[in-house]
Amino acid sequence: MLSTTPRTRLGREKQRGSHDRDDLYEVLDTGLVCHLGVVVDGHPMVIPTGYGRVGDTLYLHGSTGARSLRAGKDSEVCVTVTHLDGIVLARSSFHHSVNYRSAVVYGRARLVTDEDERLLGLRALTEQLAPGQWDYARRPTRKELAQTAVLALSLEEASVKIRQGPPSDDEEDYALPIWAGVLPLVTTWGEPVPDPVLPEGIDIPVHIGGRQ
Amino acid sequence: MLSTTPRTRLGREKQRGSHDRDDLYEVLDTGLVCHLGVVVDGHPMVIPTGYGRVGDTLYLHGSTGARSLRAGKDSEVCVTVTHLDGIVLARSSFHHSVNYRSAVVYGRARLVTDEDERLLGLRALTEQLAPGQWDYARRPTRKELAQTAVLALSLEEASVKIRQGPPSDDEEDYALPIWAGVLPLVTTWGEPVPDPVLPEGIDIPVHIGGRQ
Repeated sequence: MLSTTPRTRLGREKQRGSHDRDDLYEVLDTGLVCHLGVVVDGHPMVIPTGYGRVGDTLYLHGSTGARSLRAGKDSEVCVTVTHLDGIVLARSSFHHSVNYRSAVVYGRARLVTDEDERLLGLRALTEQLAPGQWDYARRPTRKELAQTAVLALSLEEASVKIRQGPPSDDEEDYALPIWAGVLPLVTTWGEPVPDPVLPEGIDIPVHIGGRQ
Repeated sequence: MLSTTPRTRLGREKQRGSHDRDDLYEVLDTGLVCHLGVVVDGHPMVIPTGYGRVGDTLYLHGSTGARSLRAGKDSEVCVTVTHLDGIVLARSSFHHSVNYRSAVVYGRARLVTDEDERLLGLRALTEQLAPGQWDYARRPTRKELAQTAVLALSLEEASVKIRQGPPSDDEEDYALPIWAGVLPLVTTWGEPVPDPVLPEGIDIPVHIGGRQ
């Protein structure tokens, strides 16, 4: 169960809220990038970035010089992951909507200093993009690790919102001769595109080709 | 041209930055939702929401009761739109990346009070989801308009980042027997799904079916 705090309490459209921790994991585990929100000099900054999950911890990473990570270190952040599943065409413009699944996580980001946990986080970040890739690609060197900041964010304070299904119109509008329904959005993997300078004879590994 | 301010100046990966206003319009016009960042009680809040563009103004809307809109009214906001085009599989885990196009807009959101501009903004929001839909669906009533807050954000302070193409590995890694390349992400429209309670004889309008 997800606990409710003043900022995860759903204000609008409460029926779209889920307090099921499995829904939270599902939204997070099937995403590729999140939108990281930080406060810089009093104003908000929202940056798309990679992430990975291990249990109830999200890991983020970036260059040790990146502004968004510097701002997020040991301060309050918000991480949002959104899947857009379709647009909802209602009879009235007022009831137009989108079908989506989104997770919002609030908390204080912790700079990870323990080397084992840093590797665990980086592994999760790589595996989020392509499961199997961490064991396949060249591991980070000591020098690369020194250039990389890893942040950890607890999933303790999180909310999930899910909207699926047909439009919800006003009772009197259902008689209007207006088409209404959902236009689904479908996201799929295309054919892998090899690096143009890849030598011949190196096959696409199963864990990449297998994802099509 | 997009002007550079301290917060739109690109810190990392400068070569990914574009200062072309047409790139900004392209990223914004082909998106469906943005991630709106606001500061609430000193902490960041990032919410997925709809938007529309008219010239150099972005319009956002929401219920007059929504926390994110209340916080964004007459205060600094950040609006980020991200298109994910693929994952970039490098030879080293360090150089893994994603191909993307993203726009970040900073500014003070203005609550729109002029009725004509409110309708212009709501029209842009509906048309962003489905061009042609504003003239097709039932227009908002006076009561619906009273429940809707419309915010305007100038595109004066914005930055665009674009990464496309193959991985960029370290020179010495190109000899490794590791597959490298891009796994493209393809987003398409599915078949329109009619509302189950739609009466027979109402065809899918051309502007919806035509988008498949």
